[in-house]
Amino acid sequence: MDANHSALISAIRSGDTRSLARAISGVENRSPGWSDLLKAVFPYTGKARVIGMTGAPGAGKSTLVDQLARLYRKQDRTVAIVAVDPTSPYTGGAILGDRIRMQDHFSDAGIYIRSMATRGSLGGLARTTADVTTLLDASGRDLILIETVGVGQDEVDIVRLADITVVILVPGMGDDVQTIKAGIMEIADIFVINKSDREGAERVEREIRALQALATRQDGWTPPIVKTVASDGTGVAELAHAIAGYEEFLQKENRALRKSVENWQERLVQMLRDAMLEKARVHLGDINALAAEIAEHKRDPYTVVEEIAKLP
Amino acid sequence: MDANHSALISAIRSGDTRSLARAISGVENRSPGWSDLLKAVFPYTGKARVIGMTGAPGAGKSTLVDQLARLYRKQDRTVAIVAVDPTSPYTGGAILGDRIRMQDHFSDAGIYIRSMATRGSLGGLARTTADVTTLLDASGRDLILIETVGVGQDEVDIVRLADITVVILVPGMGDDVQTIKAGIMEIADIFVINKSDREGAERVEREIRALQALATRQDGWTPPIVKTVASDGTGVAELAHAIAGYEEFLQKENRALRKSVENWQERLVQMLRDAMLEKARVHLGDINALAAEIAEHKRDPYTVVEEIAKLP
Repeated sequence: MDANHSALISAIRSGDTRSLARAISGVENRSPGWSDLLKAVFPYTGKARVIGMTGAPGAGKSTLVDQLARLYRKQDRTVAIVAVDPTSPYTGGAILGDRIRMQDHFSDAGIYIRSMATRGSLGGLARTTADVTTLLDASGRDLILIETVGVGQDEVDIVRLADITVVILVPGMGDDVQTIKAGIMEIADIFVINKSDREGAERVEREIRALQALATRQDGWTPPIVKTVASDGTGVAELAHAIAGYEEFLQKENRALRKSVENWQERLVQMLRDAMLEKARVHLGDINALAAEIAEHKRDPYTVVEEIAKLP
Repeated sequence: MDANHSALISAIRSGDTRSLARAISGVENRSPGWSDLLKAVFPYTGKARVIGMTGAPGAGKSTLVDQLARLYRKQDRTVAIVAVDPTSPYTGGAILGDRIRMQDHFSDAGIYIRSMATRGSLGGLARTTADVTTLLDASGRDLILIETVGVGQDEVDIVRLADITVVILVPGMGDDVQTIKAGIMEIADIFVINKSDREGAERVEREIRALQALATRQDGWTPPIVKTVASDGTGVAELAHAIAGYEEFLQKENRALRKSVENWQERLVQMLRDAMLEKARVHLGDINALAAEIAEHKRDPYTVVEEIAKLP
C-alpha cells in the first residue's frame, strides 16, 4: 500500500469507489500500511454526517435504511451504507443481505454499500467499523448510514461512532422487548416505530413516552417518535425531517463537538486496548500449552496473566 | 477481603450463599483482593457442569431455564443461574427479571440466582461472567446455567465458558432469524424450539436440519432438536435427557478436556487484553484533552495510540 500511498489517497478523496473498496479491504485485513493510510486520511475527515440505525432482528432495519438512502439520493446527497452484522460471528451472515441489496443499487455510484461481519476472536468489529467510517468520510460521502443489530456491547460501541442514533422498534415483539427499550433509551436520538400499520403500534408509542417521562436527557433533547412502514415508504420523509431537526439541535451550543469528544474518549480506550494486546501477544508464548495447564488446573489463569502483563 | 481470606474461601466452598454473594460482589466491583480470591479458589473449580442457554429476546429463555432448574432440583442437584443481560448497557435491564424470579425460588437454598448487566465501558461482561462462574463452581454447585441473549460477540464469549451450549429458537420470528441461525449453528450443541405449539415449529425444525446437512461438525456430534413449551413444562425432561446425552459424548475420547483447552486459549487472550489496558491507562494521561484534540482534527488517534503503546 505504501508505494502508491498519496495516489491512493487522492483517488479516495476524489470519490473513486474502486480505490475506496481497495482501501477498506486493506484496513479490514490489516494489510501492511493500513495504519499509515488511516493517519494520512484522518485530517480530511469530520465532514460526513454519520447516522446509526439500530434495532432488533426483524425490525426492518435494512428496508428502512434503503428507503432513507433513496430519499437522500433524490436530494442529490451521496450516501454510504455500512451494514454491520455481529449476529453471525462464524459464517458471516451479512453477506446474503448485501448481495440482495447490491443488485438493487448497483447502477447508482452515489450509493456505496459495504457489509461487515465479526472478524476473528478479538472482538474488533466496532474498531474496524470505525476505521471504515473514517475512509468513507474521507471519500467525501455526505451521509454515512451505519446499520446494526441493537443488542450487546459491540453494537453500543458502534453506535458511539454516530452523530445521530435512530432506534427502530416494531409492534408485537414480545416481553423481552421492554428490557431492550430500557437499555436503548439513552442512546436513541430518534425513535422509529416501523411496521406501524401492525397492531400494537400505539402501545409501543405509549411505552416510549412513559419511559421518556421517567428519564429526561441531560442535554434537554426529547427524542421524537416517527412511525414508518418501510416496505411502502410511509413515514420515511418524516424520518429525514426528524434527523434534520436533530442535526440543527446539534449545531447549537457546540453540542456536536462535545459529543464527538465524548465518543473519542471511548474510542481511544478501545484502540489502546487493541494496541496493547498486540504488544502482549509477543510475550504470550505457547498459548496452547498454557491453556492446557490451566484446563487441567495445574496453573491458575490469573497469575499467568499477571506475570505476562508485568513484562516490559 | 484479604484478612478473612481463608475463612471466606472455606465458607464459599461449604456452599454458604451469603459468603458467595459477598465474594461475587467483590469480584464484580474489582474490590481489593479480588484477584487473590480467584487465584485461591481456582484449584477447587472444574467440577460443575456449565450449561449456556442462549436465544433471541422473546424466545422464552428465562422460563425454560427456570423449568430446567426445577427439574434438576427434583433430582437433588444444586443449581446456580447466571442471567446475563447485555441488552441494557446503561440502566441494567437484568434487574427486573431477577426480582420476579428471586421471589419464586427464594425458599430453596439449592438454587442460587445472579443477574449481571454490562458494567462500564470496557466491555468486561464476558470476563466478569467467567469470574462469577469460577466462584459458583468453587462453591460446589452441580450445575451452572448461564442464560444470555444470543446475539453479538459478548455473548459468543460468554457461550465459550459453557461445557454445553443450548440454542433456543422460536417459530415466527421473521426474516432476520435465518441469519442468526446461520451464525449459531457452530456454537449449538443442542437446539430447542420453544413455544413449539405455535405455527411454524415444523418449518424451524426443517431449516435447522437443512443447515445441519450443509455443515457437519468436526467432532461428529449432530446437535439434537428438542421441542418445548416452557410455559407448561412440555419437553423439559427431554431437554435434560439431551443434555445428559451430550455430557456422555463429551466424556469420550477426552473431548471435555480438549474443549476446555480451546476455551482457555480464548479466555487467556481476553484476560491479557484487559490486563494490558489497565497497564496502559497509566500512560494515557489526560484523556479528555487528547479526545478534544482528535475531535478537532488537530491530532490523529492512530499516532496517539501508537505512541502510548510504545511506552514501557
